[in-house]
Amino acid sequence: MEITTVGAKHEKRKLQQSVYDAIVDGITQGEWKELDKLPSVRVMAGRMNVHRLTVLKAYQQLLEDGIVHVKYKSGYFVSASESAAADASPASHRDSRSWDYQARSLYVHRSRLSDIHRQQVDYQMSEALIDPGLLPNAYLSNHVKQVFDMYPKVLSTYSSVSGDIELRAELARYFMEKQGITVHPEELLITTGSQQAIDLISRSLVKDGDRVLIERPTYSPAIDLFVQQNVKLLPVEIAPQGYDLEQIEFLMRTEQPKLFYMNPTFQNPTGYTVPVRQRKALVELAERYQCILVEDEVYHDIYFGDPPPLPFFYYDTEGYVIHIRSFSKYVAPGLRISVLAARPELMNAIIPIKALSDNGTPLLTQKIFQHYFFSSRLQEHVAKLRIALELRKARMEKLLEATDWRWTSPGGGLNLWIELPNNVNVDELLRQCLAESIAFVPGRICDPLDRMDSWIRLSYSYISEIQLEEGIRRLIQIADRVKV
Amino acid sequence: MEITTVGAKHEKRKLQQSVYDAIVDGITQGEWKELDKLPSVRVMAGRMNVHRLTVLKAYQQLLEDGIVHVKYKSGYFVSASESAAADASPASHRDSRSWDYQARSLYVHRSRLSDIHRQQVDYQMSEALIDPGLLPNAYLSNHVKQVFDMYPKVLSTYSSVSGDIELRAELARYFMEKQGITVHPEELLITTGSQQAIDLISRSLVKDGDRVLIERPTYSPAIDLFVQQNVKLLPVEIAPQGYDLEQIEFLMRTEQPKLFYMNPTFQNPTGYTVPVRQRKALVELAERYQCILVEDEVYHDIYFGDPPPLPFFYYDTEGYVIHIRSFSKYVAPGLRISVLAARPELMNAIIPIKALSDNGTPLLTQKIFQHYFFSSRLQEHVAKLRIALELRKARMEKLLEATDWRWTSPGGGLNLWIELPNNVNVDELLRQCLAESIAFVPGRICDPLDRMDSWIRLSYSYISEIQLEEGIRRLIQIADRVKV
Repeated sequence: MEITTVGAKHEKRKLQQSVYDAIVDGITQGEWKELDKLPSVRVMAGRMNVHRLTVLKAYQQLLEDGIVHVKYKSGYFVSASESAAADASPASHRDSRSWDYQARSLYVHRSRLSDIHRQQVDYQMSEALIDPGLLPNAYLSNHVKQVFDMYPKVLSTYSSVSGDIELRAELARYFMEKQGITVHPEELLITTGSQQAIDLISRSLVKDGDRVLIERPTYSPAIDLFVQQNVKLLPVEIAPQGYDLEQIEFLMRTEQPKLFYMNPTFQNPTGYTVPVRQRKALVELAERYQCILVEDEVYHDIYFGDPPPLPFFYYDTEGYVIHIRSFSKYVAPGLRISVLAARPELMNAIIPIKALSDNGTPLLTQKIFQHYFFSSRLQEHVAKLRIALELRKARMEKLLEATDWRWTSPGGGLNLWIELPNNVNVDELLRQCLAESIAFVPGRICDPLDRMDSWIRLSYSYISEIQLEEGIRRLIQIADRVKV
Repeated sequence: MEITTVGAKHEKRKLQQSVYDAIVDGITQGEWKELDKLPSVRVMAGRMNVHRLTVLKAYQQLLEDGIVHVKYKSGYFVSASESAAADASPASHRDSRSWDYQARSLYVHRSRLSDIHRQQVDYQMSEALIDPGLLPNAYLSNHVKQVFDMYPKVLSTYSSVSGDIELRAELARYFMEKQGITVHPEELLITTGSQQAIDLISRSLVKDGDRVLIERPTYSPAIDLFVQQNVKLLPVEIAPQGYDLEQIEFLMRTEQPKLFYMNPTFQNPTGYTVPVRQRKALVELAERYQCILVEDEVYHDIYFGDPPPLPFFYYDTEGYVIHIRSFSKYVAPGLRISVLAARPELMNAIIPIKALSDNGTPLLTQKIFQHYFFSSRLQEHVAKLRIALELRKARMEKLLEATDWRWTSPGGGLNLWIELPNNVNVDELLRQCLAESIAFVPGRICDPLDRMDSWIRLSYSYISEIQLEEGIRRLIQIADRVKV
């Protein structure tokens, strides 16, 4: 500990008080008015010829006394006589040096999705999340408590980098029993959500200048992740009937893409599903052109009619397919458990990046997931969940029948992908909707080409049927209003 | 679902059986002997003029019947008459194409640490982990169950990217009360372990060709992470009395490093602590030369005598210090909860990378951490833990007194950093120790220059005192034996 004599401490305190007084005087005499920014700590220290720590402490004292407030990102500001709290939000102007990193500009460009999600709205149709009311919370809590009895040291143990071996063994069995897929537990990697799986793939399998095929539209954070790796993105259109395989073959032949990121089942955002014959054909193409297929199966178990086709991974004999499966999403999204399946060649490139990233997903969430995902009670839950979501989808579609909006009814998933008439400006629609507590995702965010201005994604999964009714009613009204 | 007529299915099954039979015949007739590798799926499909999926299924059937086994990474092998299980471990030779990514070679180079940790040994002195027997497991389990009652929807909710706001608010209060550090909750980011915090920093704040200062020796995964970003590492020697500030100033002036990664308190691996006056001086230097100081405080609360000096973050007024604090390590390592504190300029560059990485640490582990880290019972636990660890350290030192090995007794942390006499070959020592179920970390792994051949790190934290006694006794014996 720093040794300071009582005298020295007293001296410091006096200096600090003098800074404090100088600020209060400045405010009283009008040097700084309400909501004005105070000089930076550095400037003030120079001006008063004291150490910067002294100024910092004086400012903190002023903060505690409510005389100034901090604007996140900007500094200390004189508080208004009334509450300054409303103004304490991030300021848009920054006055100091900039750490000019690539990530920043990327984020500014793409951040609209998280900006939208951050809004607290009553009619939440932007987040493709499941209504917590549809999840078996009470049952889960009780079930989870047993996990602590079963594994008394679960909190004091690290998982291996690949993930808990018991969980991976159970998942391997699950893949075999449910889909006839043979996969060795060593070919499975537990990740903290699918987002991390895509991140690990983008960091380990592509590098600067590589070409990457990506669906258009697609899951927008995937665009961000690949852009972050400085790859060249080549969009592949996805339609209700699937891809244009000729286009894909042409791109594979002429551009030699390193991989193709796909969301082939009840695609996010469109809800479209790539049919079986295309799955087989595409695996052959991938092999011929040595292009890795990354299939991100987020909604595999959320189907309304027939179950979806078998995954691409099933048809792959040569190790060109990576399968990402999000399981926890529709039972306990808070757990953030996903699994990545890849044959050894690719897995060996991915594991080291997982080790560097976080050294393994927390063991606790894995054990909780393991012990209730494979219980029969939870499988029953998923069956009920499908029905509940299908009803919400049908309700949303019914309400939208009154409009001239166009969409293809999805066979599963959480979203409707809707084309609005040309005379509706989606940016303006979003602005006015957010002002009236309604959120949705503008299509452009999902487009690697940053167009698709007439499209929106509406999630029917998060809000109750009553809210949904009111939310859609208002959305239609606002759309009418912003027509040009 | 794929529609297949019964007839077509029957046909496929017959083909599959013929492949199966061909393999069995080949084995019977000696074409492939015990432990031989079978042809790849592709080759076999060409040879028998069938689809590869047919071969794959036949191989899977042979696998189920115990006639062949899979070597991870290598393919299908004829099983030995006796159990083939012992041989089913990763093979060292690979016969197929290589995904030649940077990560691979890096990992091969550096992987020895995780290779050592992966060994199941009786005398585990390589992992700087706390003996689960020293952690309050039963208390924790009960405590944790309350979390589910308090937050019935904790499993169905996502955390925000920065981390749970309640937890961050409590941590901000903790920093203020315990250390007089004023930090806004928006200046805190919850990460999945400290490893992730370093990863996020390396991804967001440095780029190809940047210079980075790093202690020598240091926490070896940090070396890997920065190497992964293609930076130039500039080693800074750390000694029992701290750094050589002249060396650091010279490097800052001549090389303009972007950041300095430090482990300044009970350093891993050395146990050394950077004194107060150097902390103040270094903050000034960092500011003058615009070099970000990343202080990774892993063992802050594991002190044996006086508590350690205040963190660098305390002395920073201009936002040049990033503080990483590992909290869960010594109460519930399985939770993997760390916190990163940074002023807004830097935080704004880091958050987007966290969003891309995993979109936020799981909420459940955060809530569990929050509700027991701040309980008085847990603070008592940490006090007891210090005593238990100090006793183990003393025991290890006592046992080592019989040798001519040299170390500086650390004031905290989990490790002894020991210099062996020149005539002990550490590589050979490690080899023989692992063969006798003893593990430690060879110093070279911790050295950014890949030297320090005479040093080892011994962790006294993981094994019981009885094991420690026997482990050290054997270690000394082996060291005597390998002397040249």
